[in-house]
Amino acid sequence: MNLAFRNVWAITVNDGFDVLRHAAVVTEGDRITYVGPDEDLVLPEGKEFRVIDGKDRNLVMPGLVNGHTHLPLGMLRGSADDLPLQRWLDELIFPGEAKHTPETLMTGALLALAELTRYGVTCFNDMYMSVRTNARAVEQSGQRALLTNVQIGVDPHHYDYLRENIETAEEYAGHPRIRIGFGPHAEYTEAHHSLNDSLEAALRFHAPLHIHVSETRKEHEECKARHNGMTPTQYLESIGYFQTKVLMAHCVWIEECDMDIIQKYDATVLHNPCSNMKLASGFAPLPRMLERGLNVALATDSSSSNNNLDLWEEMRAAALIHKANTLDATAVNARQALTLATRGGAEALGFTDTGCLVPGKKADLVMVDITGPSWHPMTDIVHHVVYAGSAHDVVMTVADGEVLYDHGVYTRLDVEKITAEADRLYRDVFA
Amino acid sequence: MNLAFRNVWAITVNDGFDVLRHAAVVTEGDRITYVGPDEDLVLPEGKEFRVIDGKDRNLVMPGLVNGHTHLPLGMLRGSADDLPLQRWLDELIFPGEAKHTPETLMTGALLALAELTRYGVTCFNDMYMSVRTNARAVEQSGQRALLTNVQIGVDPHHYDYLRENIETAEEYAGHPRIRIGFGPHAEYTEAHHSLNDSLEAALRFHAPLHIHVSETRKEHEECKARHNGMTPTQYLESIGYFQTKVLMAHCVWIEECDMDIIQKYDATVLHNPCSNMKLASGFAPLPRMLERGLNVALATDSSSSNNNLDLWEEMRAAALIHKANTLDATAVNARQALTLATRGGAEALGFTDTGCLVPGKKADLVMVDITGPSWHPMTDIVHHVVYAGSAHDVVMTVADGEVLYDHGVYTRLDVEKITAEADRLYRDVFA
Repeated sequence: MNLAFRNVWAITVNDGFDVLRHAAVVTEGDRITYVGPDEDLVLPEGKEFRVIDGKDRNLVMPGLVNGHTHLPLGMLRGSADDLPLQRWLDELIFPGEAKHTPETLMTGALLALAELTRYGVTCFNDMYMSVRTNARAVEQSGQRALLTNVQIGVDPHHYDYLRENIETAEEYAGHPRIRIGFGPHAEYTEAHHSLNDSLEAALRFHAPLHIHVSETRKEHEECKARHNGMTPTQYLESIGYFQTKVLMAHCVWIEECDMDIIQKYDATVLHNPCSNMKLASGFAPLPRMLERGLNVALATDSSSSNNNLDLWEEMRAAALIHKANTLDATAVNARQALTLATRGGAEALGFTDTGCLVPGKKADLVMVDITGPSWHPMTDIVHHVVYAGSAHDVVMTVADGEVLYDHGVYTRLDVEKITAEADRLYRDVFA
Repeated sequence: MNLAFRNVWAITVNDGFDVLRHAAVVTEGDRITYVGPDEDLVLPEGKEFRVIDGKDRNLVMPGLVNGHTHLPLGMLRGSADDLPLQRWLDELIFPGEAKHTPETLMTGALLALAELTRYGVTCFNDMYMSVRTNARAVEQSGQRALLTNVQIGVDPHHYDYLRENIETAEEYAGHPRIRIGFGPHAEYTEAHHSLNDSLEAALRFHAPLHIHVSETRKEHEECKARHNGMTPTQYLESIGYFQTKVLMAHCVWIEECDMDIIQKYDATVLHNPCSNMKLASGFAPLPRMLERGLNVALATDSSSSNNNLDLWEEMRAAALIHKANTLDATAVNARQALTLATRGGAEALGFTDTGCLVPGKKADLVMVDITGPSWHPMTDIVHHVVYAGSAHDVVMTVADGEVLYDHGVYTRLDVEKITAEADRLYRDVFA
């Protein structure tokens, strides 16, 4: 269905970062075809449009982009909090994950996709066991996504996972919304051969690699001890990783020499402020990354280390925590935070055809109700998005031209059933 | 109207921090009269109750307590962000505040109260010019509050503000919901005589003092330079401040010697994690305060330095930022964060009759819709409140036994009118 949003506010996140009032935004098929003054809009004849009257009380902006998720890990949400990363992984997450069944993987994926839909995320980047299950779930939910299996070299099922990832890459080649990459977990959980297997597969498919890098100080320092002083980023460079696009999750402890490499090869940092806090990993050097002009996407990580998939909270966190950590109130301003969560993130993930409201781009957008008291007085709507608004103000989520969420109604997902299933499966399988 | 919440989840924040399922919570008049198993409930005969069926899909918990606000300052929300505290104050806030009119003060207060109502805050502590206007607004909105004027000794209107505060204290003596304290702004904006005027007035009314303390490093160090090495807290002790209850906002840069004083006199710290980040003030030593057993309330500060009055975000921030800042994932756990936001905050402010679901306590509570995907699977509901839920999940706010917000409807405030007025007044007066 073609859509015409009329008499709305619009934040375009275009080159000029235009903010419009009394605007119209029109989509035809999977593309944006008009962004401009409402009064200048002439809808093409002979085509049907659903016209949504924003009544000057709604904002249209690009759909949000979540740079790093592990969809089904949300099946363990809330079961293990306030613990250090290593205990959290060793005592709860790894044993918990070993209990996954095809049913818990699918339900966990759908539960996560319901959250992403609700909170206005139209594009994301995931790594988890069973990329095929995730791909099926995303076919159902409607988002745009880059998906990978997680490879753990020390895992006896390493080759099974790799085979599944390769088969899924073949199956989804040319899919309009779903791209398949490869996901070696991290330097510290891999062996040289398994890192190399992922790289070979990625090169064969011209696909990106998605990997955890320097999430904790321990990981960063132990890598240096293992590899003659090489940081995880330097080690990955030494084995040829940057021959393809590398999406590097966390980068909390990266150094200037690592940023040199990231910049040289046009790699991407996936910044997870809330997860990095919750697991006490630390504060990533985001202000320095932005100063250097690195590609950065904003992300939630899984809802077991967050504990939700609300990218609005990450925007707000990204704009707040670095101010306190550097004692500089100008660090990461509102426009930068919103850019990271939309266009910047999309480009950093390689989705160059989404992330902004520009005719010709993909019709990935959200409509936000701005009548709540936190949106007033209406001073600077971009500041309000980042510092005052909420993901819960999203009233419509549109991906690839299709409405996925509409004023409380999920058009593709049966959320009541999904949440009930998640509760039942948690009790039966994990508790 | 007496209320009976049936078949709900309940987080009591009582001594045992009981979490109940299939519970009932009953209020009669301004008091809680029953918290326990739904099946054991026998409603007293001859009394009328509004029965709310929670359907096992709603949570009842104590109303939230916001320890430090400046209600009408929200009239400048979003107009000046990403600036250092001193520039923010000198270039925008102080000149902006000088433009306030009786109408902007009242509209700003009502706007803030609409936010507090929406987000489940039933009790708070405010300091701003025109305590009388704020008191009138709180009479209208229905919360429980401690209110003070802000005294600025260098201000030529100092005595006018003091007189208004004294008159308001006389007027509201014995009010069931509104208490009046005194609000010297801070050591660095006061003179000795004006600090003393506030103290004398507080002693005369057996009222607390509400003051900003060690918000920035600059303030803390300059005080030491001015006063023979005495910190703001030590200076306040030296002039006799702790003869009454002192509510100390921020305390970002306090030292062990300051905590000794706070502990000795049973004073209270008002912790504003988001505001302290936004203005780049830093991270207050909350884990150490909790370790020492200090009284701490959680707070938003004004919506010009936050930029909303969402105490759920402060809970989450308090539970997250200190983990990253200390690299200790056990710092400020979910139960501690929820306690700070409810019972702990209430007691810290001197409202000892609210903050928990216990028969005999004031009927200040919220009902929360837990059907959203972020609340599932249902593993640990306290973890979900702090790490996954949202203020926007609040569906009912009840203060003093009266429903203030009910599934989208504000029973006492005309929010549409208030937000329109705020927009108009911002354009006419401040822009």
